[in-house]
Amino acid sequence: MPVFLDSTSATFEAEFAALLGAKREDCPDVDAVVSEIIADVRAMGDAALIELTARFDRLALSPATLAFSQDEIDRECARVPTAERAALERAAERIRAYHVRQMPEDVQWTDPEGATLGWRWTPVSAAGLYVPGGLASYPSSVLMNAIPAQVAGVERLVICAPTPDGKSNPLVLLAARLSGVDTVYRIGGAQAIAAMAYGTQTIRPVDKITGPGNAYVAAAKRRVFGKVGIDMIAGPSEILVIADRDNDPDWLALDLLSQAEHDESAQSILITDDAAFGRAVAAAVDRRLETLERRTIAGASWRDYGAVITVRDLTEAAELSNRVAPEHLELCVADADALAARITHAGAIFLGPWTPEAIGDYIGGPNHVLPTARSARFSSGLSVLDFMKRTTVARMTPEALKAIGPAAETLAISESLEAHGLSVRARLDRLNEESA
Amino acid sequence: MPVFLDSTSATFEAEFAALLGAKREDCPDVDAVVSEIIADVRAMGDAALIELTARFDRLALSPATLAFSQDEIDRECARVPTAERAALERAAERIRAYHVRQMPEDVQWTDPEGATLGWRWTPVSAAGLYVPGGLASYPSSVLMNAIPAQVAGVERLVICAPTPDGKSNPLVLLAARLSGVDTVYRIGGAQAIAAMAYGTQTIRPVDKITGPGNAYVAAAKRRVFGKVGIDMIAGPSEILVIADRDNDPDWLALDLLSQAEHDESAQSILITDDAAFGRAVAAAVDRRLETLERRTIAGASWRDYGAVITVRDLTEAAELSNRVAPEHLELCVADADALAARITHAGAIFLGPWTPEAIGDYIGGPNHVLPTARSARFSSGLSVLDFMKRTTVARMTPEALKAIGPAAETLAISESLEAHGLSVRARLDRLNEESA
Repeated sequence: MPVFLDSTSATFEAEFAALLGAKREDCPDVDAVVSEIIADVRAMGDAALIELTARFDRLALSPATLAFSQDEIDRECARVPTAERAALERAAERIRAYHVRQMPEDVQWTDPEGATLGWRWTPVSAAGLYVPGGLASYPSSVLMNAIPAQVAGVERLVICAPTPDGKSNPLVLLAARLSGVDTVYRIGGAQAIAAMAYGTQTIRPVDKITGPGNAYVAAAKRRVFGKVGIDMIAGPSEILVIADRDNDPDWLALDLLSQAEHDESAQSILITDDAAFGRAVAAAVDRRLETLERRTIAGASWRDYGAVITVRDLTEAAELSNRVAPEHLELCVADADALAARITHAGAIFLGPWTPEAIGDYIGGPNHVLPTARSARFSSGLSVLDFMKRTTVARMTPEALKAIGPAAETLAISESLEAHGLSVRARLDRLNEESA
Repeated sequence: MPVFLDSTSATFEAEFAALLGAKREDCPDVDAVVSEIIADVRAMGDAALIELTARFDRLALSPATLAFSQDEIDRECARVPTAERAALERAAERIRAYHVRQMPEDVQWTDPEGATLGWRWTPVSAAGLYVPGGLASYPSSVLMNAIPAQVAGVERLVICAPTPDGKSNPLVLLAARLSGVDTVYRIGGAQAIAAMAYGTQTIRPVDKITGPGNAYVAAAKRRVFGKVGIDMIAGPSEILVIADRDNDPDWLALDLLSQAEHDESAQSILITDDAAFGRAVAAAVDRRLETLERRTIAGASWRDYGAVITVRDLTEAAELSNRVAPEHLELCVADADALAARITHAGAIFLGPWTPEAIGDYIGGPNHVLPTARSARFSSGLSVLDFMKRTTVARMTPEALKAIGPAAETLAISESLEAHGLSVRARLDRLNEESA
């Protein structure tokens, strides 16, 4: 049973705080193991990758077979059925069309003092994308990570995707091809992150690493952060649905379950201004759980972390949602735009009953790599900007330096940074000499 | 003596690689200590802060004196001399004018299928700025961190600044006041980071923490990353100057020294196409080092990490600079704009001989919090965007869902995510019934 909360109850605040604070992830402390793996890869390079892959993935590799060959990729792609290929191509096209609009523009202006100021955007040179193996090997995630990098203009784009027992996912390879990935390596875990960050004899280091992974991958990303850029440390998926009574309970039940089926630690929350409607949705979830393929996972998630919250009105719903800062937020209410205007923290908003969250996972266009675990309070989903960086630009004229240089000198002296001050003073002195 | 390299030498590639790989920072492994401090603050709150501040800063605090009172701030601000106040106000105004231009716009469009897509930007609710104590307590850094947050629209902005032995810097407090900071706490170190991330009885938690600090602060920021957002792990400062012979060697010497004086681990590099000019700059550095106040620090930095590199031409200079990915890059050449167009990785570019880097530290307008240690390959200086986040928005019409829903269903099934597929299918079935 999920929890049922009522915002008018005297115990509500405590119950809601408990829901917010629920620790949904067992973070095993794998840091020591990961630190050793990274040191191994830095010291031994390919040999470490080969040994670790044999141990963890039961797969014998050599430096020559670390990467899929183009022939292998061709063969794998050819195995993808036509309908899946068409769907993947359609998704790639729509994701690209959305992300192209994120391309930032360079800006430059001259201010009243005569200083020319601005900034320029450039892509990172090389990016590495981690794709988990096994059940969570999602071709859609390849598109969502690789296409923003491709749009940004990243020159070299590689994937590390473990193939436990040699099993690969043809759709992952096709998605890689559709999104301009140059090379796909058959390695996973912390060793893959280390290889992309530091390089080996065969694998050239990249500048930015993105993509989800297990606790080992997450710990490795945290460790290499600074040596390379990383996206975020992703936690289990979440959905919050705000709905009034004029909705089909079964639709919303499926939307809640579409997060719950990801992971036993996923969280699905319904907030409604109608208690009876809330019970109807919970009943619909129970009915769907009888037959759903992943009912064990989804059922555990709904039982342990699911919640149905009844509120006085939709304004209160928005306030509670902002405290959750959900990864995915569906607004199934009469005036979804008005409610959206009250939302200050959310990874992605889905407006109206015809926009199930699953559309955003695959084909809507926006990225499905989104901030989890309340991090929408301070971070954004993946975008083209994650694969670019901004260089600021400044040019002083002699007149501009005359106008603002003395203040810089004053501040430098106040901070006891004499050379800073002198670098301005030497130039100002020249100007004074010239005008004398 | 700095190293003198010549790109035409047979040993150049190895020497340049050694320069790039030089480990300039002793990163003491303080992680265990930091982990304990964070645990203490989470368990004991204010009591831990008071105990740690007594131990490390030799300062007795109580919950009531953790923060400066408004009266105390008034008194401290009144101690700032007029010239410093005016310079700080001028700097704040120019930094604000630059950062206001970074405010992003919300975007929304409707695509040919009828899907409405876009994104919205919102500020983080609360941000915490760390300001180191002692020598590196820079009022300019307060402006550079706080003003972008203020421009972004952050509601609550706090500072943690240790005051060892009770000594505070009036300019830091004035800078805080000029940039809209609400509260300044007299605490530092890992305990300050923990307090801002997790909160205590007195200190409310924030969503984003920025600002430089020592190894303990850096380790704490890395640890709390995910619970809150952080800016970056800053390393020692760097400057790279590309100059032709038509420059005053003394000016460039001062520019090189203005980074070297920050820290014995700072790095200053000159790249020139004229070997004699390079030697002249090195000689000018030596002359200035005779009298510079911080000659011990600057001299050690220049001796241990300084470099003068002679290249065949300016194109080669740009290529080498891109491999360094310097924090600060001065282009003192006849056509600085043309050379800038070849730069792909740099934190900030200063164009022409009238733009000493120190202008950017204080008053130019661009941010002086910039990526160090080659991280300009993948990251940017601090900006308004660091205090905002983007929420993606999608709305499907029934027609749009009809057009793209089936592809989403196909992909969901291929990923064995049945509820995802059903959430789309249930709606498509309704549309088919209606049109039947």
